[in-house]
Amino acid sequence: MKPNSLQELYLEQLRDLYDGEQQIIKALPKMIEKVQSSQLKQALDEHLEITKQQATRIEGIFQKIGDKPKGEKCKGMSGIIDEGDDLIGDVKDLDLRDAAIIASAQRVEHYEMAGYGTARTFAQLLGDQSAAQLLQKTLDEEKEADETLTQLASQINVNAAEKTVEGRRVA
Amino acid sequence: MKPNSLQELYLEQLRDLYDGEQQIIKALPKMIEKVQSSQLKQALDEHLEITKQQATRIEGIFQKIGDKPKGEKCKGMSGIIDEGDDLIGDVKDLDLRDAAIIASAQRVEHYEMAGYGTARTFAQLLGDQSAAQLLQKTLDEEKEADETLTQLASQINVNAAEKTVEGRRVA
Repeated sequence: MKPNSLQELYLEQLRDLYDGEQQIIKALPKMIEKVQSSQLKQALDEHLEITKQQATRIEGIFQKIGDKPKGEKCKGMSGIIDEGDDLIGDVKDLDLRDAAIIASAQRVEHYEMAGYGTARTFAQLLGDQSAAQLLQKTLDEEKEADETLTQLASQINVNAAEKTVEGRRVA
Repeated sequence: MKPNSLQELYLEQLRDLYDGEQQIIKALPKMIEKVQSSQLKQALDEHLEITKQQATRIEGIFQKIGDKPKGEKCKGMSGIIDEGDDLIGDVKDLDLRDAAIIASAQRVEHYEMAGYGTARTFAQLLGDQSAAQLLQKTLDEEKEADETLTQLASQINVNAAEKTVEGRRVA
């Protein structure tokens, strides 16, 4: 697809976001299996459910336009998930692995914020206030998920850091 | 490399950020060549210079530790840049292409924010306040670059949207 108008560029962005959400829906359960902290597990479980709703929201926008959200491969999300998989697979210590999972998940959240911010602005410019509101809702949810991860990190990273200090003492 | 401590996870994150900066330094000039708006061109030119300083900052942190920042491939950044290249290459209209360039650049900025936020927090926990300050400086610069792009987008996107509306009138 070669976008020739802002409307087409907007649809391309939405297809990209939709594929990104599908990739997260597939990858997140495998990430959750590797989590040690029950609080982090709960936060990611909840975010998986929210992600499914976010994908449904994009389907709704396409349905209203009379189009389908499929067909665009989000290479950015694909790279971010691959990199997270590599990192998490490499870390054996459980506190440290939780810290690595948070680092990877926050990269996903931030990347999505940029995409939803762009799509929301395009929807506003194209006069589709209802779609703009839905996209803003998702953007707010991504920001909230990022803040939750930052809060959880404050304890999990301290656990991982203490282990580093203990490791130094032993060494 | 398999991180066994927060210190090692921190160095892995820094290597990842360093490779990301190197990828940007390579990709940004090609993106700038395709920009129409002189203001957007100037903003990206300035950001290229800042990106070079950010890479040097990471080299300085490694030098102090007595290590080298090389060896880690940032797959996330690689995917984001590939996707941006594809999108920008597909858009022929110049106002629309500038809008696509901003959309791609903001994904890069947001992704970097997540990485620098994590690395800054790890540096603080590991008691390296000087590195934490340097990483915070880069984080602030990335946020500033993102805000500059949002401001420029407000005009560029309107130009692209007007073309869409004109297109509809003609059609």
